[in-house]
Amino acid sequence: MLRATAIQQIGEIARIDLSRDIRKGFPEIILAEGKTSEDVIKIALNVLNEKGRVIISRVNKDLIENITKSVPINAIFNINEKARIITIKDKDFKIPKTGGRIGILTAGTSDIPVAEEAKTIAEEMGCEVLTAYDVGVAGLHRLFEPLREMIEADVDVLVVVAGREGALPTLVAGLVDMPIVAVPTSSGYGYGGGGTSALMAMLQACPLGMAVVNIDSGVAAGTIAALIANRAARFRETTP
Amino acid sequence: MLRATAIQQIGEIARIDLSRDIRKGFPEIILAEGKTSEDVIKIALNVLNEKGRVIISRVNKDLIENITKSVPINAIFNINEKARIITIKDKDFKIPKTGGRIGILTAGTSDIPVAEEAKTIAEEMGCEVLTAYDVGVAGLHRLFEPLREMIEADVDVLVVVAGREGALPTLVAGLVDMPIVAVPTSSGYGYGGGGTSALMAMLQACPLGMAVVNIDSGVAAGTIAALIANRAARFRETTP
Amino acid sequence: MLRATAIQQIGEIARIDLSRDIRKGFPEIILAEGKTSEDVIKIALNVLNEKGRVIISRVNKDLIENITKSVPINAIFNINEKARIITIKDKDFKIPKTGGRIGILTAGTSDIPVAEEAKTIAEEMGCEVLTAYDVGVAGLHRLFEPLREMIEADVDVLVVVAGREGALPTLVAGLVDMPIVAVPTSSGYGYGGGGTSALMAMLQACPLGMAVVNIDSGVAAGTIAALIANRAARFRETTP
Amino acid sequence: MLRATAIQQIGEIARIDLSRDIRKGFPEIILAEGKTSEDVIKIALNVLNEKGRVIISRVNKDLIENITKSVPINAIFNINEKARIITIKDKDFKIPKTGGRIGILTAGTSDIPVAEEAKTIAEEMGCEVLTAYDVGVAGLHRLFEPLREMIEADVDVLVVVAGREGALPTLVAGLVDMPIVAVPTSSGYGYGGGGTSALMAMLQACPLGMAVVNIDSGVAAGTIAALIANRAARFRETTP
Amino acid sequence: MLRATAIQQIGEIARIDLSRDIRKGFPEIILAEGKTSEDVIKIALNVLNEKGRVIISRVNKDLIENITKSVPINAIFNINEKARIITIKDKDFKIPKTGGRIGILTAGTSDIPVAEEAKTIAEEMGCEVLTAYDVGVAGLHRLFEPLREMIEADVDVLVVVAGREGALPTLVAGLVDMPIVAVPTSSGYGYGGGGTSALMAMLQACPLGMAVVNIDSGVAAGTIAALIANRAARFRETTP
Amino acid sequence: MLRATAIQQIGEIARIDLSRDIRKGFPEIILAEGKTSEDVIKIALNVLNEKGRVIISRVNKDLIENITKSVPINAIFNINEKARIITIKDKDFKIPKTGGRIGILTAGTSDIPVAEEAKTIAEEMGCEVLTAYDVGVAGLHRLFEPLREMIEADVDVLVVVAGREGALPTLVAGLVDMPIVAVPTSSGYGYGGGGTSALMAMLQACPLGMAVVNIDSGVAAGTIAALIANRAARFRETTP
Amino acid sequence: MLRATAIQQIGEIARIDLSRDIRKGFPEIILAEGKTSEDVIKIALNVLNEKGRVIISRVNKDLIENITKSVPINAIFNINEKARIITIKDKDFKIPKTGGRIGILTAGTSDIPVAEEAKTIAEEMGCEVLTAYDVGVAGLHRLFEPLREMIEADVDVLVVVAGREGALPTLVAGLVDMPIVAVPTSSGYGYGGGGTSALMAMLQACPLGMAVVNIDSGVAAGTIAALIANRAARFRETTP
Amino acid sequence: MLRATAIQQIGEIARIDLSRDIRKGFPEIILAEGKTSEDVIKIALNVLNEKGRVIISRVNKDLIENITKSVPINAIFNINEKARIITIKDKDFKIPKTGGRIGILTAGTSDIPVAEEAKTIAEEMGCEVLTAYDVGVAGLHRLFEPLREMIEADVDVLVVVAGREGALPTLVAGLVDMPIVAVPTSSGYGYGGGGTSALMAMLQACPLGMAVVNIDSGVAAGTIAALIANRAARFRETTP
Repeated sequence: MLRATAIQQIGEIARIDLSRDIRKGFPEIILAEGKTSEDVIKIALNVLNEKGRVIISRVNKDLIENITKSVPINAIFNINEKARIITIKDKDFKIPKTGGRIGILTAGTSDIPVAEEAKTIAEEMGCEVLTAYDVGVAGLHRLFEPLREMIEADVDVLVVVAGREGALPTLVAGLVDMPIVAVPTSSGYGYGGGGTSALMAMLQACPLGMAVVNIDSGVAAGTIAALIANRAARFRETTP
Repeated sequence: MLRATAIQQIGEIARIDLSRDIRKGFPEIILAEGKTSEDVIKIALNVLNEKGRVIISRVNKDLIENITKSVPINAIFNINEKARIITIKDKDFKIPKTGGRIGILTAGTSDIPVAEEAKTIAEEMGCEVLTAYDVGVAGLHRLFEPLREMIEADVDVLVVVAGREGALPTLVAGLVDMPIVAVPTSSGYGYGGGGTSALMAMLQACPLGMAVVNIDSGVAAGTIAALIANRAARFRETTP
Repeated sequence: MLRATAIQQIGEIARIDLSRDIRKGFPEIILAEGKTSEDVIKIALNVLNEKGRVIISRVNKDLIENITKSVPINAIFNINEKARIITIKDKDFKIPKTGGRIGILTAGTSDIPVAEEAKTIAEEMGCEVLTAYDVGVAGLHRLFEPLREMIEADVDVLVVVAGREGALPTLVAGLVDMPIVAVPTSSGYGYGGGGTSALMAMLQACPLGMAVVNIDSGVAAGTIAALIANRAARFRETTP
Repeated sequence: MLRATAIQQIGEIARIDLSRDIRKGFPEIILAEGKTSEDVIKIALNVLNEKGRVIISRVNKDLIENITKSVPINAIFNINEKARIITIKDKDFKIPKTGGRIGILTAGTSDIPVAEEAKTIAEEMGCEVLTAYDVGVAGLHRLFEPLREMIEADVDVLVVVAGREGALPTLVAGLVDMPIVAVPTSSGYGYGGGGTSALMAMLQACPLGMAVVNIDSGVAAGTIAALIANRAARFRETTP
Repeated sequence: MLRATAIQQIGEIARIDLSRDIRKGFPEIILAEGKTSEDVIKIALNVLNEKGRVIISRVNKDLIENITKSVPINAIFNINEKARIITIKDKDFKIPKTGGRIGILTAGTSDIPVAEEAKTIAEEMGCEVLTAYDVGVAGLHRLFEPLREMIEADVDVLVVVAGREGALPTLVAGLVDMPIVAVPTSSGYGYGGGGTSALMAMLQACPLGMAVVNIDSGVAAGTIAALIANRAARFRETTP
Repeated sequence: MLRATAIQQIGEIARIDLSRDIRKGFPEIILAEGKTSEDVIKIALNVLNEKGRVIISRVNKDLIENITKSVPINAIFNINEKARIITIKDKDFKIPKTGGRIGILTAGTSDIPVAEEAKTIAEEMGCEVLTAYDVGVAGLHRLFEPLREMIEADVDVLVVVAGREGALPTLVAGLVDMPIVAVPTSSGYGYGGGGTSALMAMLQACPLGMAVVNIDSGVAAGTIAALIANRAARFRETTP
Repeated sequence: MLRATAIQQIGEIARIDLSRDIRKGFPEIILAEGKTSEDVIKIALNVLNEKGRVIISRVNKDLIENITKSVPINAIFNINEKARIITIKDKDFKIPKTGGRIGILTAGTSDIPVAEEAKTIAEEMGCEVLTAYDVGVAGLHRLFEPLREMIEADVDVLVVVAGREGALPTLVAGLVDMPIVAVPTSSGYGYGGGGTSALMAMLQACPLGMAVVNIDSGVAAGTIAALIANRAARFRETTP
Repeated sequence: MLRATAIQQIGEIARIDLSRDIRKGFPEIILAEGKTSEDVIKIALNVLNEKGRVIISRVNKDLIENITKSVPINAIFNINEKARIITIKDKDFKIPKTGGRIGILTAGTSDIPVAEEAKTIAEEMGCEVLTAYDVGVAGLHRLFEPLREMIEADVDVLVVVAGREGALPTLVAGLVDMPIVAVPTSSGYGYGGGGTSALMAMLQACPLGMAVVNIDSGVAAGTIAALIANRAARFRETTP
């Protein structure tokens, strides 16, 4: 009962693309949350074996304990506990540097884990990442200096991470002309807590030039930012 | 950048299915809401021309006025104003009778338009439809007689339409053993109004054997019910 | 800036009131939730000392352990663990029987703790309480027998406790003519879980003659039901 | 496929009750909202013919215009435009006085239509109704006088109607010992507008002795209040 | 069943109070929304007669048309159509100047009606009001100049009005040390539209020194701001 | 006060059905969640004794530990820990094979427990179940192969289980013509997490032919799917 | 009480900035919604005079009628009625072509207005825009052909517009490696209607590489997409 | 792409600002929630070293244990466990008394921690604070006496803390003419629990003169109240 004709045509389209190597910049990322440690480890080792690299996000203590025992001896194991993210790579795995450049800002200190998650992904996708944490709206002077440095470093995209009222992306978008990926975090309590207020603010933002990922989604932010930066870097790097 | 290998394999799978005539029982249904009358009419006449039949749901007065002027002379034009649904067919278009049998119940009189929408779709898909309207929980005796008749007519599936607290599907599901498609309607005001309470109740229902479509979705209910009934009738009809 | 004279006099009045015995049918009920065990015990012993009786609702294990050590030797200590409610009374405290009669029904077994909470309060307010648990809509025959018994016992009010889709009060209200206090419980998961669906259903209910208390509020249900029943019994008792 | 045994037992239970005249105190009430004027009028005239009385709530202008033309000459037609409620009665229809007594309070002037709706229903169910409108919390002195009068008139139940923050039932419940039916109204804008805040407040209320009906549900409030009052009056009236 | 003595005396007190002039700084404000034009006009003329001044907020066209015909000849009638607010005063009514000073800022032009509503109330309560509209976060330079002027004018409190993501109060609170009343407006569409996002942002705001009124509540903002400013001015004015 | 006449007529209707054995295809399923282990075990053993089979869903560790000690020696005890479901049967209990055929698909690995729950129920109701897990939208090629196999096996209904954005049912419904039961799961975090987004997507789905059960409701999905499949198989099996 | 020196200097800076031409790639866009026609026209003519171009989004009929009368004779006036967007330019205003390339896809026909809004903005920002409308998930073959063309045209970013269940971005993101800006539209009714379901789905999407703008925000989508594309084109254009 | 000159100068300004003492009335307050104990302690000691005082709110047991070990010997360490707030001050740090006066009321005992948090902040900002706890609406006489005392003490502002239905601020605002800061608390369960109902009620409140902070935000309430009171005291103190 498949719509046969349609699918056949899809096949023809696809055949043209067949010989090209696609999605090569994408690392495999396993979301640990909602899976048993056993399942995560099994999938991770499998991916590591096939691709030479695997990233696991939102890991918990149980998983960390168990996976350290299971990682092959010659693999390079890296864990960012704040960001709750693990990377495992073959000794000889090399991240291809793309030349893409990303700036990551956080409003507060409790936003740092999400920023670090984004940074890990972006670096694994070949980007150079500049960071400036805790530069929130309450003290404008903390923001301007690092923002100027990022602009002078000619970053291709900004990732702006903020919780509670989520006003930092609005402020930054009013100051710069580059694409901004806004990331709400689940800090804050009471009405609008858990990231709702920040998400809304970023979607409602008056200044243009901003798009948003889900609450606490450092992985999503890192990926889209790296795609943007890598595309921007395609010709810059080869330009003499 | 399409995932080439994947698509190629999809093509192979599809090729096998190619010579078969699929989805033939499905009429084309245009949701008028959210489209201009002009767009709806253009699409509708196109479908009518190609398939010999078109159904338009959620029509408004403006569309009705304009489409009556545009329908070809020899087409059979049918409008159910309460259900806000139009069918247009070539003079020689025949609905293939499937033998599928559906019973439709509503809790109140304000649920009837949604029930009629479901009925129109189910009949266009070849089913026989029995209806009993305004048989809600407040008066049990109004419910049992038509329910018994439907059981004796050996219907294959029940569509139960209810608004406000949406208790009728729960009651019916506690009494019968056949599959039930529950349809919440947007009647009711205050907290839980607009169909929210009815939808929740149907999803929370304790008695088993029920699945739900969205608020006021007579079209969705009619389609799934017809698919269930037609499948149940496949062999019954040919059984001597 | 305040209506000074008024307040001054009100303050004096209040002082007068303290010595009068008003609201005498009402037992003192302490909501333990949100207070420290120490605070609850201190308040409870104080009330017990002044009034000869205290009721504590929504108790947890920590409170139970600590309060058992603190209760005076000659007090009568009663705990209903399912309902998480404690009553402590002076040995010679007598609940004045009012003659009020209440019927309590639950849809499922997980609704019983809330029903028991209501029952405790109603009995402490002098009512006679009939109960029938797990008589939900899925099996009508389980409902009719106890309902008939309650009607024959001439209860003054029904308390109907139900979770998930909360259809039982609707069904009961369609069958009887007496006032119904509907109590949603926080059973059920998914969309409409935690009592939301049941609360909505009870507020949206088509059959009339019903009012609602908050989710899991056995105390509120017991109190209003007792007030209704006691009022109904005022003259019945004295009627020869 | 009906659960036969269950139903049979239901039949036996019911047979006993058979010869009694039930639900006689309940007037037939048609909710006009969500129905066409034609449907409402047809149903209404039918009810009027059979029962000698019909009540129609939530009427709109179109219905009022059309129904006035359709009402039989010798019927007594009554319309409360603010409350949007119509009663039609045979010339010789008599409301049986029950002796039940109800007090209705509103917080503001915009709550009056809902209060009037409740009053109409309660009076049609045979009760005597005292009212005091616009006695909200902002001015305590406006509340105490009418409240005292109601208590002295020995009303059996209070209906307290309030919108916005819905604080009046809380205040009243802290002052009296009789059952309270709280009715939230859809006044108020912004966060918590449309009656949400008032409904929540009434369900969260600290003082006990209160149950709630849905937002703007004057009909539901009037019915439950009349049931409570009529029950309370059963023996009072016959007590010498 | 009521604390009879208390209430009785309270009633008497209230009677006394009626003759006293309390809350004299407060103008009488009638919320027109949710009331019929007839009711509003009747109440308004009554207040005007007793107090020499009346304010009506959230007026619509129908009310404006009708009230202009009803205002006494010698009254001073003032209407701010954007703010939908009317003030009517006796020819010889004088607003007592308090010396309180308020600064009102809006983020955008669509926030101006709410700001004007607040301004009207504050001026009627005797305050001097400075305004700077459309100074939102997207262009910081538009904000700083008027903010500096307000500080130099030594305003006692700032009212900051903003819709959509509501970031302006956050930014202002990070820059000044005076109390801020934040007012969300119902501008903005999509997720967080209708003022929800702005309200949340203001409640979640990281910088301290801010309190919030409901969405579009210019009246509430004007009142609390005037109370704050008038209190601050109590001794300043008399200080030599 | 029961509506006597109504019930009597219900009795007559039911009497006809009396001698038949109804609902025989339905196993007894106890929802453990919200009940104490003691209560669950007591009910379960009772059902096992009467029916020869009992199913317990949403079991936790405490229940598993305790029930294993209580199960009669000669009963067959089966536990699916991922699906948190237990079946207990008499040694000689035989599931009557119906010939109904169901295909179950999951989008991800974290959806498998819910799929397994559905599978257990469907098999206990006599169906044959084909499964294909982790075939989500991100990789189309993983989906087409198993989907083709299910179509070739002529399954009567598909159960499609998905969390997060819940797009798989939409995609599948665009490809096949058979009835689909969509099951949202509570995977995913942030806005739309906990299954909300998946549930909405399934109710909003553009392709027709789908109905939905509540979040994580494997039991509900298994039951309705089995009813559909068993009905479809009624005559197929007997067709020569 | 303010950091006075800072503000003073910022004020001066701002004055300096006013004469500089910053953010030159950004056209001025006025959101007409929530403003009076008079205000919009006044602001628009002012911007047109200063910048030589102005864009007005979300225009209504009243504004269109009035603005056509006010536009200077030698200005080029352009209106896209579906997209409700107006551009007005000096005769000699030239959009600087950036070489950025954007592909825009819509799932249905009712998503086209939002897509057109995005297209207008992107073109005004100098980009080349390819479009393919009504290529939703229900018919995969409609999607693949235009998607292949966009990939072959080497677009820098995709804008994917979808309402109801919003599954198209998920499907596209599973097929391509370029950045995706997902735009939910407010089509769809019932639970999850008004764009909520689509927004959630896009934020929850499993495939990575996607960021989201608010419901119906064609302007926001066009701006961020143009920023991404223009950055990607910076060096491509100059590369020999 | 940034307004480069502006930022550069702002950067320099900020640097200048660092040496100036601004916002001197504001203590530094660290929100511990959402940060690791290590981070909190590091920041706290740094602030203590620079400012001579630090306040930490929303502390948990782990933080308390660890920080007590880290506090310098000669610092004055103060912890309010109920309010979960810590103050650490140099031995010779003196709070400058401002003469501002604040009254704090709570409706119930479970609101006391939030009140204590507000009190701590207000006192650290130099105010004198009067408190009256557990004076909720259920017993008016408990409210009037302390309210009168606060008025006689001429407090400048009232902080009114209440959970559940949050009616106390409404009642108080109807009685006094001074500014009120209303604080909802997260007490209460069921519909409207967690502070939602109280927050809504305070935003919807009919009596004017009130502004609101977020649920449980004692810190925010204390700060705004202190700003109001300190401003009111500016000239009073110097007035002879």
